[in-house]
Amino acid sequence: MLQSKLLSKTLRESPKDEVSQNAILLTRAGYVDKLMAGVYSYLPLGLRVLNKIKQIIRQEMNALGAQEILMPALTPKEIWVKSGNWSKIDVLFKLKGSGDKDYALGATHEEVVTPLVKKFAASYRDLPAAVYQIQDKFRDEPRAKSGLLRGREFSMKDLYSFHASETDLEEFYQKAMQAYFNVFTRCGLKARLVEASGGTFSKYSHEFQVLTESGEDNIVVCNQCDFAQNTEICSLKVGVPCPKCGQGVQLVKAIEVGNIFKLMTKFTKAFDYQYVDEGGKRQPVLMGCYGIGPSRIMGAVAEICQDAKGLIWPAALTPFHAHLLLLDASKKKQADQLYQDLIAAGYDLLYDDRLESAGFKLKDADLIGINIQLIVGEKAGDQVEYRFRNDSAKGKADFNQVVKLLEKEYVQ
Amino acid sequence: MLQSKLLSKTLRESPKDEVSQNAILLTRAGYVDKLMAGVYSYLPLGLRVLNKIKQIIRQEMNALGAQEILMPALTPKEIWVKSGNWSKIDVLFKLKGSGDKDYALGATHEEVVTPLVKKFAASYRDLPAAVYQIQDKFRDEPRAKSGLLRGREFSMKDLYSFHASETDLEEFYQKAMQAYFNVFTRCGLKARLVEASGGTFSKYSHEFQVLTESGEDNIVVCNQCDFAQNTEICSLKVGVPCPKCGQGVQLVKAIEVGNIFKLMTKFTKAFDYQYVDEGGKRQPVLMGCYGIGPSRIMGAVAEICQDAKGLIWPAALTPFHAHLLLLDASKKKQADQLYQDLIAAGYDLLYDDRLESAGFKLKDADLIGINIQLIVGEKAGDQVEYRFRNDSAKGKADFNQVVKLLEKEYVQ
Repeated sequence: MLQSKLLSKTLRESPKDEVSQNAILLTRAGYVDKLMAGVYSYLPLGLRVLNKIKQIIRQEMNALGAQEILMPALTPKEIWVKSGNWSKIDVLFKLKGSGDKDYALGATHEEVVTPLVKKFAASYRDLPAAVYQIQDKFRDEPRAKSGLLRGREFSMKDLYSFHASETDLEEFYQKAMQAYFNVFTRCGLKARLVEASGGTFSKYSHEFQVLTESGEDNIVVCNQCDFAQNTEICSLKVGVPCPKCGQGVQLVKAIEVGNIFKLMTKFTKAFDYQYVDEGGKRQPVLMGCYGIGPSRIMGAVAEICQDAKGLIWPAALTPFHAHLLLLDASKKKQADQLYQDLIAAGYDLLYDDRLESAGFKLKDADLIGINIQLIVGEKAGDQVEYRFRNDSAKGKADFNQVVKLLEKEYVQ
Repeated sequence: MLQSKLLSKTLRESPKDEVSQNAILLTRAGYVDKLMAGVYSYLPLGLRVLNKIKQIIRQEMNALGAQEILMPALTPKEIWVKSGNWSKIDVLFKLKGSGDKDYALGATHEEVVTPLVKKFAASYRDLPAAVYQIQDKFRDEPRAKSGLLRGREFSMKDLYSFHASETDLEEFYQKAMQAYFNVFTRCGLKARLVEASGGTFSKYSHEFQVLTESGEDNIVVCNQCDFAQNTEICSLKVGVPCPKCGQGVQLVKAIEVGNIFKLMTKFTKAFDYQYVDEGGKRQPVLMGCYGIGPSRIMGAVAEICQDAKGLIWPAALTPFHAHLLLLDASKKKQADQLYQDLIAAGYDLLYDDRLESAGFKLKDADLIGINIQLIVGEKAGDQVEYRFRNDSAKGKADFNQVVKLLEKEYVQ
């Protein structure tokens, strides 16, 4: 893609109405544009990153054997009344349509998916069943000042599983937990498993938390063992012995990037969903739910993978494989050729072909944060100068060496 | 995909609350599930078809040089007041959030995209600019009885273009028109260009209409030339001479699958979007908008590509490349092998491995409508029996011949 044609432009100044680092950086670098508090448009660069995150999640969900579906955001009041959530979910957006019909915007989809799966998985032969979707959720958050970390409209992958026995649910739950770790690792995030409130039917649910000062959640962690609990359920003070290993615990901030929850019969009971067992008897269906926010992952990565100059994308999420910078207009032919050849080799490039100064272009490239910068300028002669945005390498390279660099970064 | 694991099951009976052919067939065959009038969930089969339509549209939009973005569905009242549409669009879903804030759900996105593009394309050097998104729209349709043809929530591709001159807008408009014809042709639909109401600034807008008895639109067409107008703007009676070629005109029913519209300065004026020309002078920006509904295309194809037995998908939209049917349980090993080998050859298969009768499976396959059926049963011995759902061919084939059949259907 020619940068001269790219819709977005970088901003020199931070947006005045943003306080979170992720929103400031993603806005300045041209990834997102704020429509109002907690609601963003994804610009071409941002949509590329968001889609890569969604694709990673999709692959891991498919590997679990879950089937992708797509449920609506507009839902009838009745299903929320049935589950009891019409009055219980504070952040539920409610609206009235023609004929005085009451709707809610999906803040979560247990109320839609439970009666849906009930229609098709009525027998023990149909269980377990697992379905997921990647879709926008709506929540009327009173405070939405954290950029992509807390949206009023935000992207969500929600997986729901249905089981004939608690053993089967537990087995799937463990597999889903591993799939979640795979997602975060592939997205360049180190997530920690944290125990959180389990509701009526389970002792704990589990959150995946990325430890960082900019997080909104407060977590008690032990640095010696894997003990970690959300302060919502944990009253341990700093320095107190870890209940698991006896070492001292710490209080840290974190961003919740996923959660998994054994719902047991909470929703299957409300929607009268039972299965028929081998003996023809009706039995309760047990349910689990598993959420990851792709847009929140994007926000978390922007909070963590950055420096004073701008963003630094992990390889799997980069909007383009390399950022080609033409710093000497007299070498346009060389840069054009490299651009064509790398596209032919299967790589996606952002090519800064604009008539701007070298300093201006380098600053922009650092802000945008594509890890591999390929510079065509005076210094490298017929070769190209390369710089890794994460400072892992720099030097000069000919075409074949550039391809090797790209292969090493992107091909496993 | 093993059909024994597929979430959806076919229904023998038509759903009681549906009157449209597309909803009846797509529900019976397990592509969609109705949540309420005009609002559907896409099941695994349906989502595959929907995504193929979206991908075709995406390719044609990218070929136009348009850049994909993603705008929110939740929008603030202010932008609709600014354009005048808060009170003018009857079908706008309005809602109130915390802090008494008023929102509308995006029924269209001129109000979001115009101020967005204004931020980035301020100079003549930045024009033309064209952006599109594929996203769910919300419209409070008083009647929503036509299945996927008229949804309260429905998938939409909306493209917006911005120009420095009328000539430039006209040129892009013609190219977009061609891209639209490409989309419909690739989706297996014959669309007719129809003149429709142009609003304040243009004489006509253009609709793409698929002629069929089940359509909701009434169109006056000439069968001798390309004259076609929506009856909303045309009062010609049947048999009257065509104003273009002098032959008689006809009244026909049709499904609108797309429309394109020169908005001129309608929205750029409302949002005070002008560009700076070469001489430093501010000039009006001219705008066009271009809509296609992927879910409506799916509905239109289901209306048209079907027979008494069920659906018959065009090659480009088929949920799977072939439907493998094991009709003789003793040949499971042969069918399993074929399934593995065809996956290895790069094809997507639905494999009916269920313990059901041959008649039951064949009926299901005809209802689901994947064009190529591969039957492993008594008749073909070591070979496989193949049948095209559209009756274009049938016979026996060995593995290499099956691959050739698939190549012919799917590889250009």
